[in-house]
Amino acid sequence: MNFRIIGLILGILLIIESVFMLFGLPFSFYYNDHDISALLISSGISLFSGISLYLINRKAKRDVKKREAYVIVTFSWLTMSLFGTLPFIISGTIPNFTNAFFETISGFTTTGASILNDIESIPHGILFWRSMTQWIGGMGIIVLSIAILPLIRVGGMQMFAAEAPGPTPDKLSPKIKETARKLWFLYLGFTVTETILLVIGKMSLFDAINHSLTTMATGGYSTKQASIAHFDSPFIHYVIIAFMFIAGTNFAISYFALTGKPKKLFKNDEFKFYSQIILGASLIIAIGLYWKNGLSVEQSVRDALFQVVSIVTTTGFVTADYLQWQPMSLWVVLFLLMFIGGSAGSTGGGIKVVRILLLFRNAYLELKRLIHPNAVIPVRYAGHAVPSQIIINILAFIIFYIIIYLVSVLIMTFWGLDFVTSMGAVATTLGNIGPGIGAVGPAENFALIPDGGKYFLSFLMLLGRLELFTVIILLTPQFWRK
Amino acid sequence: MNFRIIGLILGILLIIESVFMLFGLPFSFYYNDHDISALLISSGISLFSGISLYLINRKAKRDVKKREAYVIVTFSWLTMSLFGTLPFIISGTIPNFTNAFFETISGFTTTGASILNDIESIPHGILFWRSMTQWIGGMGIIVLSIAILPLIRVGGMQMFAAEAPGPTPDKLSPKIKETARKLWFLYLGFTVTETILLVIGKMSLFDAINHSLTTMATGGYSTKQASIAHFDSPFIHYVIIAFMFIAGTNFAISYFALTGKPKKLFKNDEFKFYSQIILGASLIIAIGLYWKNGLSVEQSVRDALFQVVSIVTTTGFVTADYLQWQPMSLWVVLFLLMFIGGSAGSTGGGIKVVRILLLFRNAYLELKRLIHPNAVIPVRYAGHAVPSQIIINILAFIIFYIIIYLVSVLIMTFWGLDFVTSMGAVATTLGNIGPGIGAVGPAENFALIPDGGKYFLSFLMLLGRLELFTVIILLTPQFWRK
Repeated sequence: MNFRIIGLILGILLIIESVFMLFGLPFSFYYNDHDISALLISSGISLFSGISLYLINRKAKRDVKKREAYVIVTFSWLTMSLFGTLPFIISGTIPNFTNAFFETISGFTTTGASILNDIESIPHGILFWRSMTQWIGGMGIIVLSIAILPLIRVGGMQMFAAEAPGPTPDKLSPKIKETARKLWFLYLGFTVTETILLVIGKMSLFDAINHSLTTMATGGYSTKQASIAHFDSPFIHYVIIAFMFIAGTNFAISYFALTGKPKKLFKNDEFKFYSQIILGASLIIAIGLYWKNGLSVEQSVRDALFQVVSIVTTTGFVTADYLQWQPMSLWVVLFLLMFIGGSAGSTGGGIKVVRILLLFRNAYLELKRLIHPNAVIPVRYAGHAVPSQIIINILAFIIFYIIIYLVSVLIMTFWGLDFVTSMGAVATTLGNIGPGIGAVGPAENFALIPDGGKYFLSFLMLLGRLELFTVIILLTPQFWRK
Repeated sequence: MNFRIIGLILGILLIIESVFMLFGLPFSFYYNDHDISALLISSGISLFSGISLYLINRKAKRDVKKREAYVIVTFSWLTMSLFGTLPFIISGTIPNFTNAFFETISGFTTTGASILNDIESIPHGILFWRSMTQWIGGMGIIVLSIAILPLIRVGGMQMFAAEAPGPTPDKLSPKIKETARKLWFLYLGFTVTETILLVIGKMSLFDAINHSLTTMATGGYSTKQASIAHFDSPFIHYVIIAFMFIAGTNFAISYFALTGKPKKLFKNDEFKFYSQIILGASLIIAIGLYWKNGLSVEQSVRDALFQVVSIVTTTGFVTADYLQWQPMSLWVVLFLLMFIGGSAGSTGGGIKVVRILLLFRNAYLELKRLIHPNAVIPVRYAGHAVPSQIIINILAFIIFYIIIYLVSVLIMTFWGLDFVTSMGAVATTLGNIGPGIGAVGPAENFALIPDGGKYFLSFLMLLGRLELFTVIILLTPQFWRK
């Protein structure tokens, strides 16, 4: 294990983090808040730590193998979350370390589960940093899913790499860096566009930037306690629906669509299935809202679309307390959607649409195989037969997800949480969504969870964000052997 | 499709059923109940229908192919459940058809979910018929899992056929009939032995026979409203624990163990895992019961073992209302166990221990494959590498199970049931267990479920009992084509 290169890269990431911490300062000055020194000190500590790590390891062999890649990925998220707590703690906004860590890792993993009870009272620079953690996390995920995960073959991700601009990556070549740069520009471009549209929709510039940062990351942190329900504007709701939808789409596909190959979008199996799920679920819920909850047609459609897109893309913004919907079946639909997740190569978390799609295709073919037991019937994706090892890989991923889910629900009940709350808390953190069901529903937050439970949920956020295997593999003795 | 042979076989089954209906008559006479004419009329109708079906189709070509096998299996259970309602309806014990059908299919599928509120008031002949439906169902499952499922390759069952006495079956040969006969004798032998032991434990002969019939079938119907909790005798509890455990073990393995090859038992991967699950879960629960519920060591161990064995084997007897246990995590453990099920080749339902075992092995190897991506690392079972198609088959089965579970929970909520009750009702019917959680817990019954919900749960019982695919395949257009 080349520990020096790991230290070097973590050092560079900390230096970058220290710079990002300062981006909120203009708002601190503008709103005359008292968080300026907290941001400066936090940035200073991070910068100093980053430079130290860099200098100590500057002679590292420039050689990142797969084993190092696993360590770097998990520890990047952990280290950045650890230093990311500084602004919250030093400013006194979240004095308790456990809470600050939960809030920060919930940011970097783009989950959006919060422990804050009174968001509007928090200084603007700190709020901005909170949104920024999600944006950075989302950017990290784009690199991860386009460049690193295919390389280390986690959960069948290697097969979607072919969809990225350029050939299938086999090492971290300059081509990959070029790809990543293009996708980041796209990410930045979408963020700016959404900001402009939200300002047109009469949102303040500060709120518009913050919500755009957390939309594109499918993070879901809001500057308002009531989330998007705070803004009583259909225009704003529709803008955010559209950009959540974009953020949950494979960025590589969006890149093609915007660079003259829009057909690629509608030919993409995952994108089609992603759209179908969203339209189907929204339709069911919209009908229920119109019939049983006395809403207008427009509001039924908008509330249904907003909540469905928000959950499927794993953003977690809300415009309605879905736990109040009648019949209860409507929120059960949302709860089931928590297990789908965004597209591969998007900033969305969860199991991922493509895996669910291949799961269904394989299940259907399994019936066909029973009728024709001697025929070889492979699952097809994007016109190609998928090797059976990749199918096993994907099914194993989904089953890992389910087992981790079930065991985690059991563990949460040991902290005295009721069954439904435990189910909601685990589903929403493992899937990097934000709001859950029960006592962690859309109108509540995670402050009530005991400290041990908060660390456990933090671990689940990391696990879900890094496609399970990336983290789990570090916990096996075999990984460290030899 | 050879419909005539299907009719012929259903006819024979109805004739057999009509005979079994009469077995309760001695008790009707002895206890001087008023159910004699109801049993005679029911038997007569079944006999007449059976003979008619037989005669109409007596010229059928004696040729059962796989496609006919699928139809025969599903329709055997449906037809027998339909005629099995007659004693309940004609005697007036369960005048409502929906309820009678639910009770009967719950019997034949060895589920044990009941709609009865006052079991002790029911005439003895009818009660005996109720227990008998489970015993017949259990016998049917032994044939099915040893002889038919391997043949039609449902859910990877073909690989466990090698464990049965005799070579892997490729058609319904006399050898298979011989195997089935041996296993039935074993089934009968266990039933008689349990009856004797229960009588020694001071249970009345009637109660002893009934409970033995429903134990060996892992059915769980009791002649007492309070189930086994009615009998305040540790001896009776331990006897039933032992026989539930036996009923949840592969009968072929028990056959080996009793015919001079006891080592086979402890070398069997599935049996070892089955024992480990039961001991592990019982230990956790026993500790919880002793610490937090003020029970003695002996009672903690006994209550834990009883409930765990009852749920894992999918029997469904209870000696304690587990929903009252503190902390709640104890019943969450039981709820999770509902997704495991008995051994393949036992009368137990659910996913089956061997599938869960292969699932875990594959998940573990998936991590190994990530570390050594170029090595071919197959899952091993009983000393052999399992072909990847069978692994896909098994994973697909489990995922089918989960999807059906989730969608069914959603559907149940549309009938106005709360979320936890819906989860419990679906888990316990799909897994052929009996008691659930929420409002269908061990101290409750299924009378409160609306009619539509009862038919839906009946369908789930059938689906779970027949290893999903056997039923689902009949619902696909491809099956009926050509």
